[in-house]
Amino acid sequence: MKIGILGTGMVGETIASALLDKNHDVMIGSRTATNEKVAELVKKNSKHASQGTFNDAAAYGDIVFICLNGEHALDVIRSLDEFNTANKIFVDITNPLDFTHGMPPRLINGLSNNNSLGEEIQRLLPNAYVIKALNTVNHKLMVDARQVNNGDHNLFVCGNNADIKNKMMHFFVDNFHWRPERLIDLGGIEMARCTEAYVPFWVAIWQATGSPMFNLKVVQ
Amino acid sequence: MKIGILGTGMVGETIASALLDKNHDVMIGSRTATNEKVAELVKKNSKHASQGTFNDAAAYGDIVFICLNGEHALDVIRSLDEFNTANKIFVDITNPLDFTHGMPPRLINGLSNNNSLGEEIQRLLPNAYVIKALNTVNHKLMVDARQVNNGDHNLFVCGNNADIKNKMMHFFVDNFHWRPERLIDLGGIEMARCTEAYVPFWVAIWQATGSPMFNLKVVQ
Repeated sequence: MKIGILGTGMVGETIASALLDKNHDVMIGSRTATNEKVAELVKKNSKHASQGTFNDAAAYGDIVFICLNGEHALDVIRSLDEFNTANKIFVDITNPLDFTHGMPPRLINGLSNNNSLGEEIQRLLPNAYVIKALNTVNHKLMVDARQVNNGDHNLFVCGNNADIKNKMMHFFVDNFHWRPERLIDLGGIEMARCTEAYVPFWVAIWQATGSPMFNLKVVQ
Repeated sequence: MKIGILGTGMVGETIASALLDKNHDVMIGSRTATNEKVAELVKKNSKHASQGTFNDAAAYGDIVFICLNGEHALDVIRSLDEFNTANKIFVDITNPLDFTHGMPPRLINGLSNNNSLGEEIQRLLPNAYVIKALNTVNHKLMVDARQVNNGDHNLFVCGNNADIKNKMMHFFVDNFHWRPERLIDLGGIEMARCTEAYVPFWVAIWQATGSPMFNLKVVQ
């Protein structure tokens, strides 16, 4: 499958590498089409990897992973040509974190309580299908759920279109080893408020337990 | 031990009943000293239960459980005489939920992201020890952790005084069957922002899974 990745940070690199390992064709998009860090990854996977601008990567992918810093995500999404985004699936992994006020981190003004990055991105891409997922775990865990407790823990998924959400849940199971019975469909994209607002709590649990390699298991 | 309970809703009643069962002496406080619902509970436990005003209950308890609706909690706390609250332990179980805008619920304006009920209560009671805890689970689970997954799931505790926090963690273990290894000390009272902001997510998981009898287990 053709995958676009927006962002060259740790999350973008991890998602790109994992999907290249699964034989997907991946284009990594950044501000410039000649990002050096990306060039190295592309060199190692010359057959299946390529790089371009954000717009190139959005145009390329059937599925586009948004792996941007929460602070810059909306600016990048605004810069995309509508033609490149219509009818595509965007997996939004961003979090609107603001660490400038100490612990616990806050959410960026205007992106908490009655709003979220997931909703803002869906509003900016009205003809695309935005799925909020993977934003509640460490990047290593995103792409291999087995890294913690044999994969026995939960992934929360939000999005307005049930078929697309279902398709992406299968994608996470097939490519990232999430257990199907551990996926929780929270509802429409407005439920992204819940998972984004959890992330400061996630940081606090990391601080209290000493490692980011953990996740939540809902037990009954 | 002498326990004060502020609030006569489901949470207050459940905490009161559980602590009476453990042979504590409990005074339940409400707006009027003659709440009919409380009178019945007191009648059944005439030796160890009593009722009074909010101020009476705060004066009575060595430990005072705040079991108030998030909307009214601060007004009640403001109405307490400083003399009745100094050097006491207040366990704050409140959540600033606002259900008036549909799903997911929001947090009350001014009590999210950079603030919380836990912090506001500590500010109003500067000479008391406020411990935020139990606010992340259903009331039945608060007083008997074994009701879900044999008690193998997490309770998150915040508060500024380490000794008092430690004392209350023992109290939750001894009286409410929480497993000591499943208690997570998140830090000072400002970390109440994390557990309060999780509660809309908790409501969403309840909605997705069909039952409020669940909790989070942090797995590594």
